[in-house]
Amino acid sequence: MDELEETVVTPWEVRGRINYEKLIEEFGTQPFTNDLKQRLEKNIKQPLHPMIRRGIVFSHRDFDWLLDHIEKGGDFALYTGRGPSGNTHIGHLVPWQFTKWLQDTFDVELYFQLTDDEKFLIDREKSYEETTQYAYQNALDILAVGFNPEKTKFIIDSEAGPKFRRLATEISRRITFSTAKAIFGFTESTNIGLIFHPAMQAAPCFYPSVLHGRKIPVLIPAGIDQDPYWRATRDIAEKMGYYKPVALHSEFIPGLEEGGKMSASKPDTTVFTTDSAKSVVKKVKRAFTGGRATIEEQKRLGGEPEKCNVFAWYRTSFEDDDEALKKRWDDCKSGALMCGPCKQELADRVVVFLEVHQQKAEDAKDVLESCVIRI
Amino acid sequence: MDELEETVVTPWEVRGRINYEKLIEEFGTQPFTNDLKQRLEKNIKQPLHPMIRRGIVFSHRDFDWLLDHIEKGGDFALYTGRGPSGNTHIGHLVPWQFTKWLQDTFDVELYFQLTDDEKFLIDREKSYEETTQYAYQNALDILAVGFNPEKTKFIIDSEAGPKFRRLATEISRRITFSTAKAIFGFTESTNIGLIFHPAMQAAPCFYPSVLHGRKIPVLIPAGIDQDPYWRATRDIAEKMGYYKPVALHSEFIPGLEEGGKMSASKPDTTVFTTDSAKSVVKKVKRAFTGGRATIEEQKRLGGEPEKCNVFAWYRTSFEDDDEALKKRWDDCKSGALMCGPCKQELADRVVVFLEVHQQKAEDAKDVLESCVIRI
Repeated sequence: MDELEETVVTPWEVRGRINYEKLIEEFGTQPFTNDLKQRLEKNIKQPLHPMIRRGIVFSHRDFDWLLDHIEKGGDFALYTGRGPSGNTHIGHLVPWQFTKWLQDTFDVELYFQLTDDEKFLIDREKSYEETTQYAYQNALDILAVGFNPEKTKFIIDSEAGPKFRRLATEISRRITFSTAKAIFGFTESTNIGLIFHPAMQAAPCFYPSVLHGRKIPVLIPAGIDQDPYWRATRDIAEKMGYYKPVALHSEFIPGLEEGGKMSASKPDTTVFTTDSAKSVVKKVKRAFTGGRATIEEQKRLGGEPEKCNVFAWYRTSFEDDDEALKKRWDDCKSGALMCGPCKQELADRVVVFLEVHQQKAEDAKDVLESCVIRI
Repeated sequence: MDELEETVVTPWEVRGRINYEKLIEEFGTQPFTNDLKQRLEKNIKQPLHPMIRRGIVFSHRDFDWLLDHIEKGGDFALYTGRGPSGNTHIGHLVPWQFTKWLQDTFDVELYFQLTDDEKFLIDREKSYEETTQYAYQNALDILAVGFNPEKTKFIIDSEAGPKFRRLATEISRRITFSTAKAIFGFTESTNIGLIFHPAMQAAPCFYPSVLHGRKIPVLIPAGIDQDPYWRATRDIAEKMGYYKPVALHSEFIPGLEEGGKMSASKPDTTVFTTDSAKSVVKKVKRAFTGGRATIEEQKRLGGEPEKCNVFAWYRTSFEDDDEALKKRWDDCKSGALMCGPCKQELADRVVVFLEVHQQKAEDAKDVLESCVIRI
């Protein structure tokens, strides 16, 4: 843990550092150490993504093994997913931007699962048509992030093809109700569709191998809270003749309210990709910050960027330049930068970002169909 | 029950009559009464199938409602299925021949589900490739029975299309683990694939409605032992906007050994469609009959056709002519007909039947693909 502790005071690795260390212990994953960062940088021969530099990607499973595999000339595929229960928000886009960087850097296929079945099964108030519609709508937001359409395959669960279904069935024979219950918290009153779903979620781990007819490991960039969902997959992978999935875990992106992960269920403090400029400005201006009670006090004591969600947004997504980020931190700490202009600048950046994003999402309509895999 | 009791002594309604009455009580179904037979005969304006005339079809659910529906101009579809775990045998063909009669008589679509997924999920020793191969092989035997290829749709579970899958998912949201457990006997160690399967099995009940965009009831000809598997389907049908499935229940077809249903797990006393003439003759000659210990005794006391599996085979499938069947019964009873020639004649009929059947199965290869539905 030395590597983590020595960087704990930098402006880009400050948020809840200790909690994340506890999560690593709790989930039994490995910390993403400085050694691993250096090894990765050497391998890719280009600068690391800010999320890695800044420790937002803080944990992994077998990523060192994957680097061995790559160094021996092996390839891999990326796998991530989204439960299409509503509109996309900034909290979704941040890890996808990192996933795009991985795709670009390694020039690999991405399998993106849209679990419209799961979102339907989990919520008796939702129609299946609705979650499928969200799947297609979310897919446009995903493509807008800039994934290579030639190498990006959407698995929309409700439209998954026979090879995928077959694989899910093969997986499902190896997972008992008892195992699924322990991992996913199922009960006697859970419906039988949801009980099957872990097999649907595991299938993309082995799908690239099935499609290409050879063993290909997948790398899953995900929140660490998702890690247990791959436990059953890891347990059966080798028995089924596949590689175990490799994972990179990133911190949660906070909403604009105090604490917590950004969530569609808190629409006032979450910026959706469909939000208007006016709405973005309004939401950002109301954000929870590390500011003091009065301007006078803030000038005297300086702000607390380590607590500040506006700073967190700069750090995770809206300031790529480490020097500029450090200056923002220092200016806040010294009392030179007040919350008003700092929020305004973020709002401006978000507005510009969304304008470009919305156009890209519109353009993505032309390629979406070619990216849906139904094999 | 009067109707049943008054026919209990005829040669074609004799086998285990009382047990079947108990089953009706146990499963809570309705007896297929003489009134219902007469009503059906009037409706179809042609002679009843021997399986109805002889009471082999002895129970139903809502068949009277279906006749009302038909009389008001409504249509329906047939639904039956097969778990493709091995080769087809005569015990499978008999209810299919009855199903063919229903298809011809009412000129309706038949949805035939081949649950290769279930047979894979249930048996850890089997590969999925194997059960899928059996599905295709069994489908040839099914078509050989003479179903109208224009109106017969095979749902091979592993290749079921997105509309079917979507329907199964919709159904699965309405069945809890607790309900599935009570009906299918699932436990903590049941795999999650098998737990989902009741939704796959229910889906064909509503699939014709989905495909045609209007409410169409299905009629399921099946063994009464299958009846509980539709309990969950009946419970949710109306809530989902569909008709409850209607069912006709037939007696089990005995194997050639004493007692019991014909079963692939007893290959010595089961005639498979792939059996050679030599093998058929050998199996039939070893059959359990109602014969006496010695020829002398049999001439004196007569045989006991009510216990005889050879007679049961004539009754269910190899003697359509009621008069001829009655003569065989009487000749056995009187001691005029010995087991040797009776078996020989059955063996001859089975051999001829299988020869024709095997040719038809071969011919069916040309139409099979057009009958597989993947919508």
